[in-house]
Amino acid sequence: MVIKDILSENRKFVKEEGSLLSANPAKGLCIITCMDSRLTGFLEEALGIGRGDAKIIRNAGNIVDDGAVRSAAVAIYALGVREIIIVGHTDCGMTRLERDRIVSEMRKLGVDEDVIENFSLSTLNPIVDEEENVIEGIRRLRSSPLIPESVKVHGLIIDIATGELKPLHIDE
Amino acid sequence: MVIKDILSENRKFVKEEGSLLSANPAKGLCIITCMDSRLTGFLEEALGIGRGDAKIIRNAGNIVDDGAVRSAAVAIYALGVREIIIVGHTDCGMTRLERDRIVSEMRKLGVDEDVIENFSLSTLNPIVDEEENVIEGIRRLRSSPLIPESVKVHGLIIDIATGELKPLHIDE
Repeated sequence: MVIKDILSENRKFVKEEGSLLSANPAKGLCIITCMDSRLTGFLEEALGIGRGDAKIIRNAGNIVDDGAVRSAAVAIYALGVREIIIVGHTDCGMTRLERDRIVSEMRKLGVDEDVIENFSLSTLNPIVDEEENVIEGIRRLRSSPLIPESVKVHGLIIDIATGELKPLHIDE
Repeated sequence: MVIKDILSENRKFVKEEGSLLSANPAKGLCIITCMDSRLTGFLEEALGIGRGDAKIIRNAGNIVDDGAVRSAAVAIYALGVREIIIVGHTDCGMTRLERDRIVSEMRKLGVDEDVIENFSLSTLNPIVDEEENVIEGIRRLRSSPLIPESVKVHGLIIDIATGELKPLHIDE
């Protein structure tokens, strides 16, 4: 199991003297991005973001759902965030979900047949286009009464291979 | 605005020849953790996780809400994940939310007075105890019909200062 390697790696990492950073992000920034493993250990460097700089919200497809709005509201009202960037990425797996393949995996992993029969692909929130999805995310943040107009909301796409950022919307 | 610095930093970062990693995480791993800025640029190294190794889901308080379950299901059925680790952390801001301070910030940022009057702290999903919250997250994953029993679900707490991991539940 991977957990064993992680616990063993961690013993080498632990700092004798921990650093006491503020819980408020140094850059007053919150990033909403995808859970994609190719962004893990890559996004921070590509954006020039270090430890303590930004709250990062991640889910499948950087969807601005109720949970993302809740987290962004906490970041704004409890942790001093004044700027939000939604970062979508090229080649997002959420554009390629197919019910048949999901159902076949469910069956292989022993999911109950009645759960499978009632399963609708829309439960997983698939997306059609990565760029349109970022713009839709901005729209949802802007239409939420919990997100004040004074907080800037930007939208970018990151090239998952090269790390290049493409601005979709800069909130001047 | 921070976005300007980010776009400028990014120009220095971009790789001429991008790397074509698989969208499936190399370690078959999904991590559910907090959006806390002190985990940004820290968690991966503390866990010995590199680029491409793991899907990472992050929200305020590593809450296993509907969005986290949806993302975990995508990770399992579409991206080959077979092991999930919930990583809570010490000194989580979600244990310190206070309605009065939130409301005062809302007012300062110009949120509509009727939104403020109807605002309930429970909307933000505050937590009482970081360890109990991880165990509750495991319970929610285990009670979801979308998460098969064959997928391992572990729970850890990371010390936000030293990076030391404390196992709460290892799914043997």
